Amino acid sequence: MRCGGLTRTRSQVAGRTATGCGREATTHRVLAPRSQACNSSSRHGRSGARRPAAGSPALSSPMSSSRAAAAGRAAAIAKEVMLSEAPARLCREEDTGMREKFEKSIRKAQDEICAAITAVDGKAFHEDTWTRPGGGGGISRVLSDGKVWEKAGVNVSVVYGSMPPEAYRAATGVDKEGLDPTDRVPFFAAGISSVMHPRNPHAPTMHFNYRYFETDDWNGVPSQWWFGGGTDITPSYVDEDDMKHFHGTYKQVCDKHDPEYYAKFKKWCDDYFVIKHRGETRGLGGIFFDDLNDKDPDTIFEFSRECMNSVVESYVPIVEKHMNDAFTAENKEWQQIRRGRYVEFNLVYDRGTTFGLKTGGRIESILMSLPMSARWEYDHQPEEGSEEAKLLHYTRNSKDSWV
Amino acid sequence: MRCGGLTRTRSQVAGRTATGCGREATTHRVLAPRSQACNSSSRHGRSGARRPAAGSPALSSPMSSSRAAAAGRAAAIAKEVMLSEAPARLCREEDTGMREKFEKSIRKAQDEICAAITAVDGKAFHEDTWTRPGGGGGISRVLSDGKVWEKAGVNVSVVYGSMPPEAYRAATGVDKEGLDPTDRVPFFAAGISSVMHPRNPHAPTMHFNYRYFETDDWNGVPSQWWFGGGTDITPSYVDEDDMKHFHGTYKQVCDKHDPEYYAKFKKWCDDYFVIKHRGETRGLGGIFFDDLNDKDPDTIFEFSRECMNSVVESYVPIVEKHMNDAFTAENKEWQQIRRGRYVEFNLVYDRGTTFGLKTGGRIESILMSLPMSARWEYDHQPEEGSEEAKLLHYTRNSKDSWV
Repeated sequence: MRCGGLTRTRSQVAGRTATGCGREATTHRVLAPRSQACNSSSRHGRSGARRPAAGSPALSSPMSSSRAAAAGRAAAIAKEVMLSEAPARLCREEDTGMREKFEKSIRKAQDEICAAITAVDGKAFHEDTWTRPGGGGGISRVLSDGKVWEKAGVNVSVVYGSMPPEAYRAATGVDKEGLDPTDRVPFFAAGISSVMHPRNPHAPTMHFNYRYFETDDWNGVPSQWWFGGGTDITPSYVDEDDMKHFHGTYKQVCDKHDPEYYAKFKKWCDDYFVIKHRGETRGLGGIFFDDLNDKDPDTIFEFSRECMNSVVESYVPIVEKHMNDAFTAENKEWQQIRRGRYVEFNLVYDRGTTFGLKTGGRIESILMSLPMSARWEYDHQPEEGSEEAKLLHYTRNSKDSWV
Repeated sequence: MRCGGLTRTRSQVAGRTATGCGREATTHRVLAPRSQACNSSSRHGRSGARRPAAGSPALSSPMSSSRAAAAGRAAAIAKEVMLSEAPARLCREEDTGMREKFEKSIRKAQDEICAAITAVDGKAFHEDTWTRPGGGGGISRVLSDGKVWEKAGVNVSVVYGSMPPEAYRAATGVDKEGLDPTDRVPFFAAGISSVMHPRNPHAPTMHFNYRYFETDDWNGVPSQWWFGGGTDITPSYVDEDDMKHFHGTYKQVCDKHDPEYYAKFKKWCDDYFVIKHRGETRGLGGIFFDDLNDKDPDTIFEFSRECMNSVVESYVPIVEKHMNDAFTAENKEWQQIRRGRYVEFNLVYDRGTTFGLKTGGRIESILMSLPMSARWEYDHQPEEGSEEAKLLHYTRNSKDSWV
């Protein structure tokens, strides 16, 4: 059985034997620890948090080493059981309000985006679902070896977990003296994440991730909530019209919600997706935000939802334009080299990936973001004035605006 | 010009234009910070350190997060200048004793190993050399796209640097109260490192690294010295005779020097090269040691030299045996998947690599260890009872002995 239509269907897993039902896996963590201090507010989105964030925005997102260390010590979440079919809800029954709303939005987005990709590629997504008896779970969908995409994955997951006070402090910036270090702060996290790597070297890779996070009331510390996410594009060759279309789509979404969003989130994206040891960005940007809780939760939810619902519009026309472009062996090799850079960023710097690897997340879901294949050539230097050098130039000098 | 013979020859760099002479690069760090406490002793190998190491041997080598953090804050080393020719010595003129001896041994090993590989492959190594006016530098040799090897690199380097007291304490375990945190502890490090990835999926990848480290006398703290290194093998398919030959060669070298070495260093290797998030070792082991300073330096030097001089004998006959083996597209795909695992280990866990990336080492030399190409398939599971499953089994259950 395959999925990919607008209606969720039974998983292919049901048709497997050795590795199918009953196989255990751990949850996929859909989010990284928070990068900066956040503001307290009531949960479930019943009231907005209007106080400004306690810390100044950390536009360069990588965690400090102390935060990374604290995150690495977060409690590992219990193992999951594979299901033959996606459940109606991953949230617990008692979870209403924003938790429920957000799950609905990411599962609808997963359905719609997979359907749109399958409509172009012709191949359906394979689905793996896992859950925990107490609530939470994930649905991984992957299209491998398609006509248009070498590998495309779209994951959703809902995680209930708990973290030690140290990790909580590191993640939220909220401190309370005298807490028992063996205590645990309960949290809820839901998110959708995706990476798509097309075959044609003239068609760009695209990544997006949207997430909602809550901590429960705990030892007199009020619950915390925030939204995070972003969509970014990684071409091997620069097509200025493509970039104008992609960035323009997200500028429009941002501008509709807040005149300051686009400039801020575009810069945040440029600052986050940096392969520091290369002095290059992974791709040519997009938007990225985290710790967003400075408006009414429903207002931020609408922004987040519109961002994820704009993935298809921002990306698919670009792939359709280039999927049949002629290309040379050199073009393909350059694409593979850029995919090597993608691997370097994801394994060395990406907070979601490194957090997931450290804390025992479901490896196959986390590493779904890696390309089908990648290449490392010693000291590869594109010829001056070439199209390859042009791409490299923009990874070393982020363009102020593509729009 | 090419190198690869027993005599060092002029570098190909001389023949380049745009990226040749005058190009700047940073030094290649040949070593990771120490993983455990070590013992003090006089430098230059003039007297042995016979006291036992202060800390218990850390057989599982990955640094603690605090050590990694301290290492990351080590002073970046000044940029290097590319040379058209390898200098007669990378050590400073005033460096005699063990520093000079060790440089000679690693450069001789580089020459001999490159010559042996070229003799089998038919293709010569490309050489890049860099230096600093004050002393130190490196020679990177790489054979790309050969007949037998897809990529083989052999680097030597000599580094003079300094680290803040915090990094010194983390690296050596030696503490001294009241030191100025802005002070810097001078160190010397020399090493050879190599990874070779053959084309044929039945021929294994091999890695080795041998290094010597000294800190100078500093603020009343006596200088420290130690040796580290190892050779390990990463096949995609298990050939028990090959394993017997490879491990047997190193067992013989170890046994000649200390009856306890082989068991200890074999286990250290199995414990170090673990892809923790997969629960797999990178390959099928070999030997690995660090912080070795519990005998006379000349005695340990002889052991280290014999280890590096056994690389060809332990490895090349295996490649010669398999380089023309018939293989299927499935064999090649499995090899590429295992190379993906190699990339995961090196970018996520390898101390030398992660230290180099964090501290601004010469990227092309550090990442020379990555394979020419690698592959990530979603949830790839080899068929039960297959040769692929057999390899996987041994990465999940290290064999007590191959000999």
